[in-house]
Amino acid sequence: MRRIAYLLSAVVALTGVAVWMAHASGYADEQAAPIYGVKIPAGYRDWKLIAVDQLLVPGKIDQLRGQFGNEIAIKAFKEGKLPFPDGAIIAAIHWTRVPSEYNNNVLAGAFPGAQSFVVGSPVNVQFMVKDSKKYAATGGWGFADFKDGKPGDKALHETCFPCHTPAKDRDYVFTHYAP
Amino acid sequence: MRRIAYLLSAVVALTGVAVWMAHASGYADEQAAPIYGVKIPAGYRDWKLIAVDQLLVPGKIDQLRGQFGNEIAIKAFKEGKLPFPDGAIIAAIHWTRVPSEYNNNVLAGAFPGAQSFVVGSPVNVQFMVKDSKKYAATGGWGFADFKDGKPGDKALHETCFPCHTPAKDRDYVFTHYAP
Repeated sequence: MRRIAYLLSAVVALTGVAVWMAHASGYADEQAAPIYGVKIPAGYRDWKLIAVDQLLVPGKIDQLRGQFGNEIAIKAFKEGKLPFPDGAIIAAIHWTRVPSEYNNNVLAGAFPGAQSFVVGSPVNVQFMVKDSKKYAATGGWGFADFKDGKPGDKALHETCFPCHTPAKDRDYVFTHYAP
Repeated sequence: MRRIAYLLSAVVALTGVAVWMAHASGYADEQAAPIYGVKIPAGYRDWKLIAVDQLLVPGKIDQLRGQFGNEIAIKAFKEGKLPFPDGAIIAAIHWTRVPSEYNNNVLAGAFPGAQSFVVGSPVNVQFMVKDSKKYAATGGWGFADFKDGKPGDKALHETCFPCHTPAKDRDYVFTHYAP
């Protein structure tokens, strides 16, 4: 009985460690996105930055965004090589854009009328995973969209490839590497 | 004579390699910023991202910005530890913010009125280097501002610390780590 209790507590402890490790490593969730089966890749928040951008749809979307690449993707971006090789993964984090009163107050002296905007909370995170065989039907890319670690539904994921199709001449990637 | 010519050509070749390596490694220049003597740290463009932000001063500044940290800085940001330990370096790249007609055209179908802004060219890059002894007079930080690899003048660098002083309770750092 004592042994079972010990084993149980060990399992609980290990589960805790596993959950902690999962979060620390960037695995927010083990769920896979529909259609493509893409999961959140470990450590993507620490990947090298491709670029940043801003998207504003008045009344609907007000975001600052960052795109990150794993080593294979970054190498391809830097070399300007298309198509991206298999194994390339691009991550895009979309944050709410919020005004920073703190920064504006500091800047007011030097720059009257300064408007500083910073990131608020993450809205969603998207991934493109290159596998020219597995995803041959969608330009060689698998797509995924997660909110709070949970993948969006099938209908959402059906929009990914059509939306990226206009960028076919850039291997379906909108983002340029920021100098 | 032939030996001298050979040596000379070898020196020229090596100089070429050194210049190439300097650029490839992220050393845009060997010049140090006035007052603080900070040089451009190697490879900063590939450092992990701290956050992104936007600064708008109508008619003067219209930028998207990214802050990057070396491993010491990133660890401190993630752990929320202040003050930053010696050796921490924060880099900030400021790019012009430009509208992307390409993206807007693509987005128009799904998001009428969408305004996509991307990075244009780099305006300047700034660094904060923590050395609590060397820079004791300025909160433990050395500051540097470079344009096209060349440091700004003394007058510009005299503005760094006073501008960061309001953030004394955050160890003089404005940027928060983006979740």
